[in-house]
Amino acid sequence: MPSLHQATRGRLLFGGDYNPEQWPREVWTEDVRLMREANVNLATVGVFSWALLEPRPGEYDFGWLDEVLDLLHDNGIGVALATPTASAPPWMHHRWPETSPQDKDRTVRTYGSRNAYCPSSPVYRRFADAISAQLADRYAHHPALRMWHIGNEFGTVCYCDSCAGAFRQWLQAKYTDLDGLNEAWGTSFWSQHYSEWDEVIPPRKVQYIINPVQEIDYQRFASDLLLDGFKAERDIVVERNPEIPVVTNFMGFFKGTDAWRWAREEDFASLDSYPDPNDPLGACAGAFAQDLTRSLGRETRGGGWIMMEQSAGAVGFRPVATPKAPGLFRLWSMQAVARGADGVLQFQWRASKQGAERTHGAMIPHAGPDSRVFREVCELGKELESLGDVLGAEVEADVAIVMDWDAWRALELEHQPLEGFSYADRLYEYYRPLWQANITCDFVRAEGDLSRYRLVLAPNLYQITDAAGRNLERYVEAGGTLVVGPFSGVTDPDERVRLGGYPGSLRELLGIRIEEYWPLADDVELRVTSARFGALRAHRWAEWFDLDATGAEIVARIEGGPLQGQPAVLANRYGSGIAWYVATLPEQAALDRLLLAVASDAGAEPVLPDLPEGVEAVRRGDQVFVLDHRTREVEVRHG
Amino acid sequence: MPSLHQATRGRLLFGGDYNPEQWPREVWTEDVRLMREANVNLATVGVFSWALLEPRPGEYDFGWLDEVLDLLHDNGIGVALATPTASAPPWMHHRWPETSPQDKDRTVRTYGSRNAYCPSSPVYRRFADAISAQLADRYAHHPALRMWHIGNEFGTVCYCDSCAGAFRQWLQAKYTDLDGLNEAWGTSFWSQHYSEWDEVIPPRKVQYIINPVQEIDYQRFASDLLLDGFKAERDIVVERNPEIPVVTNFMGFFKGTDAWRWAREEDFASLDSYPDPNDPLGACAGAFAQDLTRSLGRETRGGGWIMMEQSAGAVGFRPVATPKAPGLFRLWSMQAVARGADGVLQFQWRASKQGAERTHGAMIPHAGPDSRVFREVCELGKELESLGDVLGAEVEADVAIVMDWDAWRALELEHQPLEGFSYADRLYEYYRPLWQANITCDFVRAEGDLSRYRLVLAPNLYQITDAAGRNLERYVEAGGTLVVGPFSGVTDPDERVRLGGYPGSLRELLGIRIEEYWPLADDVELRVTSARFGALRAHRWAEWFDLDATGAEIVARIEGGPLQGQPAVLANRYGSGIAWYVATLPEQAALDRLLLAVASDAGAEPVLPDLPEGVEAVRRGDQVFVLDHRTREVEVRHG
Amino acid sequence: MPSLHQATRGRLLFGGDYNPEQWPREVWTEDVRLMREANVNLATVGVFSWALLEPRPGEYDFGWLDEVLDLLHDNGIGVALATPTASAPPWMHHRWPETSPQDKDRTVRTYGSRNAYCPSSPVYRRFADAISAQLADRYAHHPALRMWHIGNEFGTVCYCDSCAGAFRQWLQAKYTDLDGLNEAWGTSFWSQHYSEWDEVIPPRKVQYIINPVQEIDYQRFASDLLLDGFKAERDIVVERNPEIPVVTNFMGFFKGTDAWRWAREEDFASLDSYPDPNDPLGACAGAFAQDLTRSLGRETRGGGWIMMEQSAGAVGFRPVATPKAPGLFRLWSMQAVARGADGVLQFQWRASKQGAERTHGAMIPHAGPDSRVFREVCELGKELESLGDVLGAEVEADVAIVMDWDAWRALELEHQPLEGFSYADRLYEYYRPLWQANITCDFVRAEGDLSRYRLVLAPNLYQITDAAGRNLERYVEAGGTLVVGPFSGVTDPDERVRLGGYPGSLRELLGIRIEEYWPLADDVELRVTSARFGALRAHRWAEWFDLDATGAEIVARIEGGPLQGQPAVLANRYGSGIAWYVATLPEQAALDRLLLAVASDAGAEPVLPDLPEGVEAVRRGDQVFVLDHRTREVEVRHG
Repeated sequence: MPSLHQATRGRLLFGGDYNPEQWPREVWTEDVRLMREANVNLATVGVFSWALLEPRPGEYDFGWLDEVLDLLHDNGIGVALATPTASAPPWMHHRWPETSPQDKDRTVRTYGSRNAYCPSSPVYRRFADAISAQLADRYAHHPALRMWHIGNEFGTVCYCDSCAGAFRQWLQAKYTDLDGLNEAWGTSFWSQHYSEWDEVIPPRKVQYIINPVQEIDYQRFASDLLLDGFKAERDIVVERNPEIPVVTNFMGFFKGTDAWRWAREEDFASLDSYPDPNDPLGACAGAFAQDLTRSLGRETRGGGWIMMEQSAGAVGFRPVATPKAPGLFRLWSMQAVARGADGVLQFQWRASKQGAERTHGAMIPHAGPDSRVFREVCELGKELESLGDVLGAEVEADVAIVMDWDAWRALELEHQPLEGFSYADRLYEYYRPLWQANITCDFVRAEGDLSRYRLVLAPNLYQITDAAGRNLERYVEAGGTLVVGPFSGVTDPDERVRLGGYPGSLRELLGIRIEEYWPLADDVELRVTSARFGALRAHRWAEWFDLDATGAEIVARIEGGPLQGQPAVLANRYGSGIAWYVATLPEQAALDRLLLAVASDAGAEPVLPDLPEGVEAVRRGDQVFVLDHRTREVEVRHG
Repeated sequence: MPSLHQATRGRLLFGGDYNPEQWPREVWTEDVRLMREANVNLATVGVFSWALLEPRPGEYDFGWLDEVLDLLHDNGIGVALATPTASAPPWMHHRWPETSPQDKDRTVRTYGSRNAYCPSSPVYRRFADAISAQLADRYAHHPALRMWHIGNEFGTVCYCDSCAGAFRQWLQAKYTDLDGLNEAWGTSFWSQHYSEWDEVIPPRKVQYIINPVQEIDYQRFASDLLLDGFKAERDIVVERNPEIPVVTNFMGFFKGTDAWRWAREEDFASLDSYPDPNDPLGACAGAFAQDLTRSLGRETRGGGWIMMEQSAGAVGFRPVATPKAPGLFRLWSMQAVARGADGVLQFQWRASKQGAERTHGAMIPHAGPDSRVFREVCELGKELESLGDVLGAEVEADVAIVMDWDAWRALELEHQPLEGFSYADRLYEYYRPLWQANITCDFVRAEGDLSRYRLVLAPNLYQITDAAGRNLERYVEAGGTLVVGPFSGVTDPDERVRLGGYPGSLRELLGIRIEEYWPLADDVELRVTSARFGALRAHRWAEWFDLDATGAEIVARIEGGPLQGQPAVLANRYGSGIAWYVATLPEQAALDRLLLAVASDAGAEPVLPDLPEGVEAVRRGDQVFVLDHRTREVEVRHG
Repeated sequence: MPSLHQATRGRLLFGGDYNPEQWPREVWTEDVRLMREANVNLATVGVFSWALLEPRPGEYDFGWLDEVLDLLHDNGIGVALATPTASAPPWMHHRWPETSPQDKDRTVRTYGSRNAYCPSSPVYRRFADAISAQLADRYAHHPALRMWHIGNEFGTVCYCDSCAGAFRQWLQAKYTDLDGLNEAWGTSFWSQHYSEWDEVIPPRKVQYIINPVQEIDYQRFASDLLLDGFKAERDIVVERNPEIPVVTNFMGFFKGTDAWRWAREEDFASLDSYPDPNDPLGACAGAFAQDLTRSLGRETRGGGWIMMEQSAGAVGFRPVATPKAPGLFRLWSMQAVARGADGVLQFQWRASKQGAERTHGAMIPHAGPDSRVFREVCELGKELESLGDVLGAEVEADVAIVMDWDAWRALELEHQPLEGFSYADRLYEYYRPLWQANITCDFVRAEGDLSRYRLVLAPNLYQITDAAGRNLERYVEAGGTLVVGPFSGVTDPDERVRLGGYPGSLRELLGIRIEEYWPLADDVELRVTSARFGALRAHRWAEWFDLDATGAEIVARIEGGPLQGQPAVLANRYGSGIAWYVATLPEQAALDRLLLAVASDAGAEPVLPDLPEGVEAVRRGDQVFVLDHRTREVEVRHG
């Protein structure tokens, strides 16, 4: 079984996307010289090269790529070779217009940009498989090859008739017959009963609220459809050489693809990460995505993860594309290593002088190698060389946050009780105090193994399976500490509300019965009092409990207003453990206090105690990384 | 002639939309038991049942509906039976795609939601009439049947070619020949002259401002086209049993359908009303729509009105769907009864566990009958039983507000002098002080009988017919008091500006001549002084008068700026009455003072004097309802 | 060669758009009487008359226009006769739907408004040429004819297949072969390589960022395509009578058409100008567009300019359409004369009583001639009669601002480093202090003759040709003073970044080397200190310099933060002149101070010194106009 080790070969990967086809050959020579100077050991090649590799249908030109791979290899630089299928050549869209994706209103997204293809199009799939096979035939045993990089940032959604057909097949596999679909989709509502399979279509533009399960199922289908494309290309390259690991790049908290399902199909995980240098908590946002990717890495076939893309300078797509200040590139790169990355790659090696991303930072900026940025690149390259002993070393966490794509999709359906109740925000609010306290977190599947954690947080599980509910029960019963956030446990995977009082299957575990959810206008401030936590402020959300049926200890209550006396925080002994329920959205400072107290009760410890605010500590294997986000000096301690 | 009395049969109607097709039969049994417990006497059935009643074109399945009607009848519960035509089954859109509506840009709104049909489609109409006939054949004499409920919340607008054809027919009927249309539409402007009828199309997506009469005529046509659909179904059911009253549900201040024209075709009026519990003036907003509906009821064939839909809990479509706090459901229900409703129905009986409206409140919430909400429902049901003596009793008002759909449509055309000058806002600003002072208001048509009122307010009549102008003149001449708001009397029904000085045909009545309208930037504050009203603040709007041609008494003038000395409020003796003109937008407090002074002059009295702020009093028949919106306790006085 | 003199014939033009086809004949009689009363000497006729002149394809009706022209001529009023091609009749769009333009998403903008035609449509062009020829055949020698007015406010962009074909022809002319296009468009990026010309399409709706050169080239093409239409009609009318000057109306800082390219094809320039009366700096905004138009006039065949459209009252398209206060119409009209206009025309003569622009002000408002507005019109008409001696007199300026449409297009592409970095804002910020100081400014092409100016400002030249770079060098070398704003000199005309350090070809002239652009979040305030200018505040933008390679004098530096010590303002002696570089966006007050100091150094003098704030002075020929924007009194001094 191939794994990340075959790619790293004893060195932390360092390098980035390399697009030599944008430059004349004399630049290639300079490139490899500078790569050596910077200790670059991996170049990602070919991500957007389809139109040059296959300038006309079935006419291939690999000459330049042969040169590139040989040149890199001759200079000791490994290659992540991409199937170039993220962007099909103009000829495909021109000759087969049905390969361009359609929006919900059936208007077309055409070529002239990237990633615009219909993922179900047989024409697209045939050509994508063919170019992948050609590449694999030619390079699967090339000595420079370290990994396959399938496509790029999968995420395109199309609503065309071909996708409608594929959706129906997906639904037939899921529901067997139309009765199953009618039942799951609740089509008795609003006269939506289907009498023939052919009537079933994607959630296109409609008059009012779309059927919620039609919408969620389409999101699930769209993720699976893209995954089918990934698997098709993966299988083609693996067939040619089973020793080379295969990956594609995740985008952190990206709703479009269910990364738990994808991870299982990859040999390791990788992340494209672009925190905002203007964000005072940019390092926290970065860690958030890295910890998710590390957790995804555990679900892959071979384990581990790398930073596949970050920027050495400005992030082109930001409205205010502030570059990284001196030292910040090193600091955030070391953060990734600290959090388990076995490689730090950049988009891209050399800043494009043309094209849509000419404003995106690079390891060699427009100014050229005589520049602050390239000097910092070289320093980092050298430093990473000295850190090879962390390769493969684990980051252990006492705390896990439950992350679930179906809960995300369902929570953010139209006409939920509170507009703008964002799933990722909920997770980040719970993650943030732990990061600030240097308590390392993993992310876990709702049905995943929780036994290794002292504390599990479920900031939101609006939609939840029965199995996940039982999983949480077993965890607490066995002595775990669980914190569940508001508006959880409401619906089942078919988005059916669990009746008889919320939160459905979590009622017993949490020892509560809720009658009504009670969103609040933005300008309402809830006063909450607690013997243990003192006065808290909260906002935007409360819940109406059936107090007679609520056995949990009420740790904090609402004061005043129509919700006077209603619980805001509860704790329920269950088996040998304890299950907390937070029935509101406390101010961040209050939530921080609450979660750190619970973490402390549960025995979840900081990596290092008593660090000043802004100093991050992470243990990886037997090393502790201490990252000072105040001064932007990095310290690495061994021991 | 059938009337609301045939539906009420001596009891205030209580109940709501009942969708048993969403539930297994064991739930039906519980439903009727709980309905009896709650004193429910009416269930609205079948609104969205088309796809189940006709699962394939021409294949009907009424078995389940037979059961439902019999079960309800056996339990003493009456039925409002709907023609299920608001939402056509998927098979219709799938087999006849032209039955789906098109937007202005010709993209399609397809199925998967509700109310998406092309109202002019012959296929849609044929199937809609057929299912209506089938239902009427089967149930027109069912003993449970109390009323027919045609469609639901009519409002869909389509811009397809079929609608273009229907529009041309409507225009031919209106203008006879193309010369008439060219003249009315002012097509000499911007090279829009039509040389053949076939050239005339709906106001689809264009480059810049649309022809204003094309736009208004399309809005008129769209309302009439939907009304044709209503009438077709009504005639079908009436033909089967002329004794059953027929209604559809109005939506208060909904611009899409001219309810004055619709009311004439119904046997009584009904309202779907969803004020925001977060709005401190939610009760005022509720009363505003109720008073309109009561006034519409007077125009119906049989008179009277009912609350057709409100929520017992949260309102699903609100961005912050806060439930009704304890007592509020009772309070707002009693308000409707006080303002003339002969029934209080809810959407819906049992909260859906699936589908797009699963988050909308219900008489039985997700928590089930063991809940605060259902207990309040039962209490209200019992209380309403005791109030049967108000049935049919009138609410009398001394004051009327002129409400005109054409003025609304025209005022809100593109490129009016002040963007965001909202018709409904203008009416509400004039309504609000009267509601707060417990002076009951009706709404009237601009050409309607005004003789019964001591005071008539016309907050805006931007577009006005000659007949309406004469109607207002006659009213004042005979001793009435009239208050006209700014930017009134400007255009005729073909949106032609009346020349020679504004406000066209109201110049003589108001004793003024205006040369220019003078909208003001948001941050400009007008200082207005008045011997009678003291200093007032106003904003956003002023007018430049020809003072030589203005004979009215200038009651308030602008101080300072280029508008120094211009009138802000004027009063004109005309015949035995007096006509006020307010030429600006006073701050709400100033407008309140002004209108209450004029009301007092005119002899319009509060129902009860000297009530504290927040306490509402309404006289219905010989009873006075006193509603305390501060404490949310309801008091009902007889006497 | 025809020129503006043939139109003015010794009198400042005064009048406006005249649309008699909207009125019955009795109004025409009143019109000419009132025109004489107001000293009107020019009426623009026929701009939107196509549908009446050609009510059916090929059927013409010129009878009414004959009457109008004769009537005007009989009353001594000249005519600007329009080719009515801005708005095609409904029959064209109805019979040939391909003449309606398509948006980026391929949805159609249909008729019912104005200016909606596909500029590349052969059908449209054939009919447009035919009506132009008919008009010219009939009226080219009419004694009333003073000028031809081709179309109106050219600006429509279409993305249909016909335009795609025309675009490819334009590209073939530009790039010769597909290799040239592939190279210029940088199609090696994102797999965009074209293998056949037919694959090349307009920048329609895409998934993500569009290819930047595809976008810019389409903007260039769209301007040229419209210009082709202008030229076709111009040539048709010139062929009939070469003595009549030809013009179309510019819209000031309108991005859609490159007015430098258009000016060369016209006999003089003209402006449609609608500053906001609510803007305290409305007069500055007006002067800004007037100075541009005067500068464009210099590029025309005959020279000179007129105000083609302004409003005597409210501006219909403004969200808050506040009319001009008493005196403001005169004041702003005199400003145009002072800044070189040989005529002051209004849209329109008589306010429409119907149609989309019925709310737009006019010389005769809805109130009629008995009105403040018409009285002011008459006073202005009389005053202009007395000012004939300024005709043709020049306005001389010591300062010029570089204005470049390609820089504008490129600067505002997607994903530039700072969203909302607006080209026109940059120019206005540099223009404003000079206007306030009464230092007259011209605008110049980047490659235009700069030798007459003491000071040249280039607020932004993000994209710049090599020739322009050399032009600026020559100017400074010869002793000129140049100020260049931030983010200049970055790309070449194919939007290729100039490598090796910004600002590309301006590095030597400015004596700097920049490594990175450094946009800043809105809430960041840069502290900048300068021995010469004291403490300045700046925001949103900074730049990272290679200080070793920066030879210019650093006049101001950033204090604090990661940019500590970085230059903010630099000055570089170059040849006999000096080149300033402003590397940030100073607060307006700081920028004012800076630019006025540099202007003073350069010897650029106010027209009159020491005028109070709000008093404008302009010298035209041997007269000085002093305009008091505080009291709105106009003084005109001769001498």
